[in-house]
Amino acid sequence: MNAGGTATRRDLTPLFEPASVAVVGASDDPVKWGNWLARGALRGASRRAVYMVNRRGGQVMGTRAHRSLAELPEAPELVVLAVPPAALESVMDEVIAVGTRAVVVITAGSADGDAGGARDVALATRAREAGVILLGPNCLGIFDADAELELVPNDLPRGSIGLLSQSGNLALEIGALAESAGLGFSRFVSLGNQADLEVAELIEELAEHDGTELIAVYVEDFRDGRAFARAAEVAARAGKPVVLLAVEHSDAAARAVRSHTGALASEGAAIDAACHAAGMDRVNAPQELLDLAQGLLGAGPPHGRRVAVLTDGGGHGGIAAALAAAAGLELPALSADLRQALRAGLPPTAAVANPVDLAGGGERDIRSYDRAARTLLASGEVDALLMSGYFGGYTDYTETLARGEAAVAEELADIVAESGRPLLVQTMYPEAPAAHALRRRGVPVYRTIERAVGVLARLADRAGRDPRGVPELPPPAEPIAAATYMDARALLAAGGVPFGPARVVSTAGKAVAVAAEIGYPVVLKALGALHKSDVGGVVLGLRDEPTLAAAFADLNERLAPPAVAIERMAPLDEGVELLVGARWDARFGPVALVAMGGMFTEVLRDVAVSLAPVDEAMARELLLSLRAAPLLLGARGRPPVDLDAAASAVAALSRVAAAHPEIAEIEVNPLLALPTRAVGLDARLVPRGADQV
Amino acid sequence: MNAGGTATRRDLTPLFEPASVAVVGASDDPVKWGNWLARGALRGASRRAVYMVNRRGGQVMGTRAHRSLAELPEAPELVVLAVPPAALESVMDEVIAVGTRAVVVITAGSADGDAGGARDVALATRAREAGVILLGPNCLGIFDADAELELVPNDLPRGSIGLLSQSGNLALEIGALAESAGLGFSRFVSLGNQADLEVAELIEELAEHDGTELIAVYVEDFRDGRAFARAAEVAARAGKPVVLLAVEHSDAAARAVRSHTGALASEGAAIDAACHAAGMDRVNAPQELLDLAQGLLGAGPPHGRRVAVLTDGGGHGGIAAALAAAAGLELPALSADLRQALRAGLPPTAAVANPVDLAGGGERDIRSYDRAARTLLASGEVDALLMSGYFGGYTDYTETLARGEAAVAEELADIVAESGRPLLVQTMYPEAPAAHALRRRGVPVYRTIERAVGVLARLADRAGRDPRGVPELPPPAEPIAAATYMDARALLAAGGVPFGPARVVSTAGKAVAVAAEIGYPVVLKALGALHKSDVGGVVLGLRDEPTLAAAFADLNERLAPPAVAIERMAPLDEGVELLVGARWDARFGPVALVAMGGMFTEVLRDVAVSLAPVDEAMARELLLSLRAAPLLLGARGRPPVDLDAAASAVAALSRVAAAHPEIAEIEVNPLLALPTRAVGLDARLVPRGADQV
Repeated sequence: MNAGGTATRRDLTPLFEPASVAVVGASDDPVKWGNWLARGALRGASRRAVYMVNRRGGQVMGTRAHRSLAELPEAPELVVLAVPPAALESVMDEVIAVGTRAVVVITAGSADGDAGGARDVALATRAREAGVILLGPNCLGIFDADAELELVPNDLPRGSIGLLSQSGNLALEIGALAESAGLGFSRFVSLGNQADLEVAELIEELAEHDGTELIAVYVEDFRDGRAFARAAEVAARAGKPVVLLAVEHSDAAARAVRSHTGALASEGAAIDAACHAAGMDRVNAPQELLDLAQGLLGAGPPHGRRVAVLTDGGGHGGIAAALAAAAGLELPALSADLRQALRAGLPPTAAVANPVDLAGGGERDIRSYDRAARTLLASGEVDALLMSGYFGGYTDYTETLARGEAAVAEELADIVAESGRPLLVQTMYPEAPAAHALRRRGVPVYRTIERAVGVLARLADRAGRDPRGVPELPPPAEPIAAATYMDARALLAAGGVPFGPARVVSTAGKAVAVAAEIGYPVVLKALGALHKSDVGGVVLGLRDEPTLAAAFADLNERLAPPAVAIERMAPLDEGVELLVGARWDARFGPVALVAMGGMFTEVLRDVAVSLAPVDEAMARELLLSLRAAPLLLGARGRPPVDLDAAASAVAALSRVAAAHPEIAEIEVNPLLALPTRAVGLDARLVPRGADQV
Repeated sequence: MNAGGTATRRDLTPLFEPASVAVVGASDDPVKWGNWLARGALRGASRRAVYMVNRRGGQVMGTRAHRSLAELPEAPELVVLAVPPAALESVMDEVIAVGTRAVVVITAGSADGDAGGARDVALATRAREAGVILLGPNCLGIFDADAELELVPNDLPRGSIGLLSQSGNLALEIGALAESAGLGFSRFVSLGNQADLEVAELIEELAEHDGTELIAVYVEDFRDGRAFARAAEVAARAGKPVVLLAVEHSDAAARAVRSHTGALASEGAAIDAACHAAGMDRVNAPQELLDLAQGLLGAGPPHGRRVAVLTDGGGHGGIAAALAAAAGLELPALSADLRQALRAGLPPTAAVANPVDLAGGGERDIRSYDRAARTLLASGEVDALLMSGYFGGYTDYTETLARGEAAVAEELADIVAESGRPLLVQTMYPEAPAAHALRRRGVPVYRTIERAVGVLARLADRAGRDPRGVPELPPPAEPIAAATYMDARALLAAGGVPFGPARVVSTAGKAVAVAAEIGYPVVLKALGALHKSDVGGVVLGLRDEPTLAAAFADLNERLAPPAVAIERMAPLDEGVELLVGARWDARFGPVALVAMGGMFTEVLRDVAVSLAPVDEAMARELLLSLRAAPLLLGARGRPPVDLDAAASAVAALSRVAAAHPEIAEIEVNPLLALPTRAVGLDARLVPRGADQV
């Protein structure tokens, strides 16, 4: 419906910081939206004119209710509509007639909840034509902490997170979790059906909003996925992390997948590819979102993966260390100098290995904590500090310990600021004064160690990682005319994917003649079957004329293929088989995929994806990100493959895919990566339409 | 120090339900252990005589303090010692002299915390000889809810979990988490140094304890790991799940690992093997322990993996469904009949797919929840129900909704009981009355969806799974005399692991003669090098005399090996390479391992482990549990391998390993699994001692 991209940026001030607001459908009935919104709107009455509109007139919330927008003394900059669905169009007429600049439509656009349907389109078109910004329909409101705009049904904690959510209940849950993490919202926008304002435009807006330090998004319908990813990339590069809570709403089973690529490059994989491109952090549940937000808003990512663990008890230390190691963090052994420095500041019971375990030393001398933390973070031997266990609980012992614990919390926050290295804290006492003090100072505090470790590992993954960038799509090429094996091969070869010589032959004699020209050993492929190798339609390793002739006859007898291809056989045992492909995703456009080929593709699902097209450097990065990448680099005495050649083939395929929106799936499987070159051994192409059930 | 096994079961009544208790070191000083314990002991004063002992005499806690145990009017059945380390031995003299039956030693056994050291041994020996049960030293006490025995420094919630912990702070954290989950403890034992009483004996005790329904264990030192596992197996078979929180305290880097098996069959893997054998559930952190305990103590494991999701909002439904699918649970499409039955009981807004989404219907009719739950769980189409989101929050709307929500909670608990199918609930309002009501009725309630889904997936994994059983060790065989390649081969072959013909030769001429006998193609192996293939010491595929002679000469020139083995070459490309091995773990004894062989062993770490020896059926189960098992069953047109032959080789190797405690590591790598047989292609053996740094 609209592009949502930079080209169409609008001034959203009337939406977030309106000079005046009218609530249409305002009500005194405490179980109605019109009541909740009126109540919220009036909280900003010291900042702006707030008008109640109710067609019955009278009084609402103790102020005069106007019968229509036309009756108001001025045109309100922002109108929020909580009217019955049947009244929506006529009220929109009024909105447009009075010259309102923005409208928030709580009302569902259609009685049957037909999001994105004709009624939504009509509504958005009218608004656009009139120059009115429209949020919704079917949303639950908007909130701006600084502007004291609270057009939402619930109280929301204030803070520095900009939240965009397509689900009301999830926004509520995220709000509750934020509050208990000491976080809150700079702005909240309920996306609703996104008939006009889409998530991409709102991300761009938040990226420029001074009060917003982190953007949290829950979205089911990405609309233009590339515009969404571009907006997120802008935000990420502006230093505002975008944390995306999104789930895959349909799986490959819903599509008639024709290739491995179609199965492996799922919608979820496309979302992941968009996250990599935009530098977004994807999470799978609300708590994970807030946990990561706490980590990102705190000291931020560490410079590396080296972590020290600090506890007051061996059990907590052991568990923290084991979880950290399992999450891919490193617990370096501490140098003799560092151990000596630690020992000097700690009670004699303390163990000064990593974990550093005060072993009851906290009770004897609570300042052991900050002395150890300072020594560790100043040492240069670790990139981050993880505290686990009892800290927060000393306050209950004695007044002296309580004062000491409060001092330690402030000191720890100072140490983090001075060292530039993050501290994450897990405590058994998350509501203790010291825990709150740490949160207030921006030190992330978690109730459970697995959450603290999970966040630290994600922060470390993020260290030094730039967004890959959302690639531009090339102009569409001439659409393909046919989709046979030889067509796919020709298309890809023309785009720069290397293949060996191949010819279509119709008789054994011709096959023998071609073999003489291209050289033995050769391969025969029965054309026309979708999965040639599954039906015995591929015959490998034909070394001479008689074997070739016999194989040709056998193939014809068994399968009677419409045609047979003959190709030079590649040295399979000298290389590594890869799967290289691309799928055109409905939201995110072309997505490129690389995987270990052969039987391992399906069994191990060792796959890397990226928005297409990818350049050679990105293709190389994808290949090296595979778990089985050591096989490419040479393992146990085998020579490494020509990674540049393989990457070049991946990039070439992705460029072809990106120039052909009419191709649903395209793949080379296998691409044989050899020590001195790469060569495609098979190709497949599924036109759009053929992938639909 | 002791066996801890069934053979030495003792009557632990004096420890858990003593007729009388004395606190030695009782004190009025509120920061001393002697005060906390005295306070706790006195809470049971209506059940038993409680004596205070302090060498200074006078009064403690308002009652007379005796100067020594000898001064008491009777011999206390249980004595708890909180005395200075230096006084420990002399007080133990008194304990033994007066005829006390059990002693809990809070005092650290040694001033330097030398757990398991000579002083602990001496203490335990004296206690044993005197027939006194000794808990500790260096423990923080014991608790028995029914017996009102509270010899612990903190309040503990009462419930049905028996907790054995080697860490005080972790026990504290587990207690806090249990309380917030509505759970508590039947008994708690702080293990301390386990000088006399070991974890295995205590598990056996709890397995027979009526008040205990689940046994939770945090342990760092397993002592006799096999006895531990046997005790846990007894408990599991008695219907009392054992949930084990344990971390790997040393990694392979601390040992000089000589084989792949040594690296892959880590101490952590040995713990996993013990868990499989005993039917224990291993967890990695305290919250995970309590989450799982809630699930196990609730409705218990479902009969299968089919789950329905029920929410009042699409966002929560989508996230729950995505997490469930990612955790390996199935969300079946519901039949037309079931959908119709659901629709009949729900508001028109509701979506009756899976997830079932009331879509605001909860506010309109709160009983939608239990009607939908009953219909789903009675349908036979799902094995479990997962509720997520808003339930619990309706109480804040109106009095009617509050009453309705309370009724729904009771009804849901009834439905679970009637259907025998579990319900797990995630709610944004974990402290709501309805949430507490559900917990009271045994329905697990979680704050976050990822925890609810994680538990349900684990419960489903558990469905129908019996303990593998802790295997008995065979009597030790004659120890090996040497550990060369040919020795390893001979030992394994004698035990039933199939190998092809091989001979050691010293000249090219002898090699040619042997080849004529065993048949071409042959392989040459330079003996003496640990990783033959890494140094080019293995020459494959020698097809005739001249090639063989040349290869022999080349091998001698390059490596000058002390000897060369010649073997019949196996058809590598017709089979699947496996790694089969065993490692003797210091705690758990021999641990068998199978993995995909070749380069994939290291890259993919696709490994299955079990306590050894394993029988053929178990070996088969291990092989089929590999992620890459489809390769064994025939994938993409390849013939399946002879699984029986491979399993037989695995079982044979494990029997050999179990009969040779002097072997640290032994492996066959690869074992080539072929369509009609299996054959070992290489063997390696590391004697004990050689694996120590």
